Amino acid sequence: MPINSTADIEITTLAWVPEGARGLVKDLRVRWALEEAGLDYRIRPLGGERPADYCQDQPFNQVPCLSDGTVRIFESGAILQYIGEKSEALLPSDPQAKFRAIQWTFAAVSSLEPFVQFRVLLDVVFADQPWSGPAKPTFDHFAQLRLGQVAGWLGDKQWLEGDRFTIGDLMMVTVLRIASKGGLLEDQPKLAEYVARGEARPAFQRALADHLAGFADQPEGVAA
Amino acid sequence: MPINSTADIEITTLAWVPEGARGLVKDLRVRWALEEAGLDYRIRPLGGERPADYCQDQPFNQVPCLSDGTVRIFESGAILQYIGEKSEALLPSDPQAKFRAIQWTFAAVSSLEPFVQFRVLLDVVFADQPWSGPAKPTFDHFAQLRLGQVAGWLGDKQWLEGDRFTIGDLMMVTVLRIASKGGLLEDQPKLAEYVARGEARPAFQRALADHLAGFADQPEGVAA
Repeated sequence: MPINSTADIEITTLAWVPEGARGLVKDLRVRWALEEAGLDYRIRPLGGERPADYCQDQPFNQVPCLSDGTVRIFESGAILQYIGEKSEALLPSDPQAKFRAIQWTFAAVSSLEPFVQFRVLLDVVFADQPWSGPAKPTFDHFAQLRLGQVAGWLGDKQWLEGDRFTIGDLMMVTVLRIASKGGLLEDQPKLAEYVARGEARPAFQRALADHLAGFADQPEGVAA
Repeated sequence: MPINSTADIEITTLAWVPEGARGLVKDLRVRWALEEAGLDYRIRPLGGERPADYCQDQPFNQVPCLSDGTVRIFESGAILQYIGEKSEALLPSDPQAKFRAIQWTFAAVSSLEPFVQFRVLLDVVFADQPWSGPAKPTFDHFAQLRLGQVAGWLGDKQWLEGDRFTIGDLMMVTVLRIASKGGLLEDQPKLAEYVARGEARPAFQRALADHLAGFADQPEGVAA
């Protein structure tokens, strides 16, 4: 069980988020990677009021940050790479395989996530804005274009580069889970199956359970 | 002069783009890094009709890709890291300094660029959509929030982590150049000065000149 209060690796999490965000907060990415790598970690849950100095750790006031006495870093992509470099299971050492994995990590958060995230936000955060309805066809177009390109690449492969799961898949699955929750994968069966393969991994299941259990400890409505 | 037709490193570029996109296409990021590292490269310009098999190199049908006989990769962030690992000048080997640089590379393309890019697109690609005007205050808010957070972190530092320029700065400056061109840095003097420091580097100047010269060779209006 990688959660261990005496572990060197500490990650920041959110003490409470609304129901709809549970399972999507980005500490899940890091918990999953640590489970895959078999590395112990402890959590530092943050309330709605961040400590005054937290923006010195994370200027965007978000989670997760990772610190372990060697590094003190944020951005889930960078953290996945840091964990990956400790675990051949997540990031191969062969240069081509390594940089293909890194490439897909960037592709997930840069070439796919923004299009998915903005489309999903139209139905959630921006739902009551008068422009959000009229903007949907445009945002739908771009989200589906990018999703279709990922599906076209994936084809019948198990993972993005074939038989081997890497940090690139881990990141891509977590981004596609946002699309799935927002109803954007209904016409993308290959991607839905790929997400299901990711979610079936025991390391994902453990990470998700711990991620969700953290919220259950909090009285609902506190420190959103 | 790093452009060399017999170099091992090949990068894909666009043979022609409209005036407004010149200086912003992402091959500039890679050219700049190769200039900083002093590594020779050759270019493979692509017309509007990509080769039929190009999506096997780049599923999003974009530039740049890098190949050198060892790796064949896309995503400018991954390519900057690959070049960085060949050059201590761009990516320190000390773990904390290395992963702080990687963290800023991800922050630039994931935590900042989407907010800047969507706001700028409202004035360009989406300008004639009836929802784009009403959407501007919301997108302005998020773009300025993130820009302000980067400015707050930067403060009076020369580069994001102090005195040393890394791939994180290179990527951040290229993202901020999109904001600058879109008029989003008018109230962000610290960021405007930071962009100017990046643009003043001789390696940037050489990369930009070569990037722009590529377009000058093409008859205007061909292969948009």
